[in-house]
Amino acid sequence: MTVTPSHTLDATSSDFALAAGFRSAATACGLKPSGNLDLGMVWSDGPCSAAGVFTTNRVLAAPVHVCLDTLAAAAGRVRGVLYNSGCANAVTGERGIADARRMRELGADAIGAKPEELFVLSTGVIGKFLDMEKLERGVATLRSHAALRTADDAVRAIMTTDTRKKLAFWPLSLPGGRVTIAGFAKGAGMIHPNMATMLSVITTDARLEPARLDRCLRAAVERSFNRISVDGDMSTNDTVLVLASGASGAVVDDAAEPAFTAALTDVCASLARQIARDGEGATRLVELRITGGDTERQAHGVGDAIACSPLVKTAIHGNDPNWGRILAAAGYSGEAIEPDSVRLWFGEDDAVQLLDRGLPVAFDAARASALLKEDPAIIHLDLGLGSASAIVWTCDLSAEYVRINADYTT
Amino acid sequence: MTVTPSHTLDATSSDFALAAGFRSAATACGLKPSGNLDLGMVWSDGPCSAAGVFTTNRVLAAPVHVCLDTLAAAAGRVRGVLYNSGCANAVTGERGIADARRMRELGADAIGAKPEELFVLSTGVIGKFLDMEKLERGVATLRSHAALRTADDAVRAIMTTDTRKKLAFWPLSLPGGRVTIAGFAKGAGMIHPNMATMLSVITTDARLEPARLDRCLRAAVERSFNRISVDGDMSTNDTVLVLASGASGAVVDDAAEPAFTAALTDVCASLARQIARDGEGATRLVELRITGGDTERQAHGVGDAIACSPLVKTAIHGNDPNWGRILAAAGYSGEAIEPDSVRLWFGEDDAVQLLDRGLPVAFDAARASALLKEDPAIIHLDLGLGSASAIVWTCDLSAEYVRINADYTT
Repeated sequence: MTVTPSHTLDATSSDFALAAGFRSAATACGLKPSGNLDLGMVWSDGPCSAAGVFTTNRVLAAPVHVCLDTLAAAAGRVRGVLYNSGCANAVTGERGIADARRMRELGADAIGAKPEELFVLSTGVIGKFLDMEKLERGVATLRSHAALRTADDAVRAIMTTDTRKKLAFWPLSLPGGRVTIAGFAKGAGMIHPNMATMLSVITTDARLEPARLDRCLRAAVERSFNRISVDGDMSTNDTVLVLASGASGAVVDDAAEPAFTAALTDVCASLARQIARDGEGATRLVELRITGGDTERQAHGVGDAIACSPLVKTAIHGNDPNWGRILAAAGYSGEAIEPDSVRLWFGEDDAVQLLDRGLPVAFDAARASALLKEDPAIIHLDLGLGSASAIVWTCDLSAEYVRINADYTT
Repeated sequence: MTVTPSHTLDATSSDFALAAGFRSAATACGLKPSGNLDLGMVWSDGPCSAAGVFTTNRVLAAPVHVCLDTLAAAAGRVRGVLYNSGCANAVTGERGIADARRMRELGADAIGAKPEELFVLSTGVIGKFLDMEKLERGVATLRSHAALRTADDAVRAIMTTDTRKKLAFWPLSLPGGRVTIAGFAKGAGMIHPNMATMLSVITTDARLEPARLDRCLRAAVERSFNRISVDGDMSTNDTVLVLASGASGAVVDDAAEPAFTAALTDVCASLARQIARDGEGATRLVELRITGGDTERQAHGVGDAIACSPLVKTAIHGNDPNWGRILAAAGYSGEAIEPDSVRLWFGEDDAVQLLDRGLPVAFDAARASALLKEDPAIIHLDLGLGSASAIVWTCDLSAEYVRINADYTT
């Protein structure tokens, strides 16, 4: 397996802090009718190295356009990120882009930065314009000491339908000293590989060049955020940003890059798992371990098809060891699997085998059902072809998912 | 539009008959614990031209292997098809293939045909062996007059989780005389383009060569069965068979082929719509009309992404005019749409416009919601690029879908 499986200790609110060199603020400016926190900022007093990965949706939200502009204009030297929930500023045309630019200016002013040194993120309902008056008042409040809340508050300000905060941090010893990678994310619906209605901001006090940080982030996202699916939908706003303050003084050079990439991947994978676990209506995380592939891409493709299958996900929800649906999904994945070679287990150490070389194995249905009830429910499919593997995470599909999504805007 | 939209009159039980030259039988042999009809046969007294289209799943069920063998061995000259419900005979290895061959022999014996002149179809739970004793007794019963029931009974014998029969017929005048195309289908879950847990048997009394029939069927399936999605899952058994008895004496030649293909497409599209309408837990048919595409393939790709989006389908279920989800799905379809060119309407003659050149239009939410409640709910997305179009059918996604699928085998 190429990333740490799901047993990794994910951060909890009480011990969460951003990496050294970063500050955060949050406020409620009225974009959320509930009055909850809806505006946040994470920033550094000096320029950071920055990298970003964005949605591949053809319909790009205005803040994504502006983030891409920031990355290009600042050559990867960025001071921070201002974000709001309650409105996605997507499908808002030229006015939306002008609003996102104005939001960037307001945030930059607040921390004494140039506009092109700031990222902006928005999440919430599509097709509504940002209320710029509320936003402007909100950013003014962010400057005040009252808004300098805990990192935990900064995380809450980015949440929409999330029922839990998504936090992760990872300490790492480099030759130059200890560094920390600490990040947070939001996302519960419209989650699919290639980024989904998810936003993530990751901070680190390591010192590295933007080009290297970009390489590390792309490798990390490929094995984390691109390996989760809640409903197969991909949003217009998805963004993962990483900012490196360099405050630790520890340099990530060629020798240290693999370790840094591995740690960044673990942080991203932890956040990705937390997003999948908090899938709308989900009652458990599902970890699909696909081994024995000819290539990692093939293993990922098979896992992705299984992760997107409503029939598989409803069966897991019902604790129903319906392995036929898993095999059928592998079969239509588009990957060149050999049906006569596959083996399938539920669970981990106390695994129950369901298929051996493509044929059903007699199994204890009660035990298999009990393993599906676990959180995470672990499904291990060996393709019997090669030695490549991939982990893909998803969640079960419940009637509650339908209830949540049948009545969101109205 | 390339096929007749969904207003086409679909056949009802009372007026349904197979095309001239075909007979049918049905019985309950005990494969379904319910005691319902579970074994059926459709056959002709003489050889028919035959064509088939099969699942592209890498995991092929045993009867699909045997059908392919029949098509190859008989050079498209086939007498009929024997089918069962209650057991899919899939993921059953060598023994499953031997069972399917034996099933073919039994059926062929019953009508005095050679084994390679018969197709066999199975549908039901995956991974269980056919109960050959029950099947053998059942086929013996099929020979008796008691089993020579109405065509309607033959249709019921193929149903699994279907709540309605799927029937369609189409009369067609050719220069050589009148011909009929009459078919039936089953399928409610695991429905996705490229064929899904769906079986269809179509009969016609037209006279045409197997190669021409194959060409007509492939064209028809591309614009019908490959244009529906219930849950994005594709099964291991999907098969569409067409048998032409020639009993009308009317020949389909080069000149008549377009008209015959159009009629066959209408029959297949009608069956496909009935399958989508009967999607597990569905309360209505959804017709996605994608126009203004550069190519039909592009329009189909966009429609397919929308049809597979759980967020779109739950919104329709909730009568929620959440056009952002439709646009987002179009955006991640992988097709090169231009967000600034798209226009979106709900409904048909009294359409409500929601997007114009990529931007939201103020609309009457109550009216838009009412249009989504209609059956079919019609969604029209114009890509604003070219003149190609495609219709894709799906259904809404309800909490009932989850309840049905969370507890199917157990």
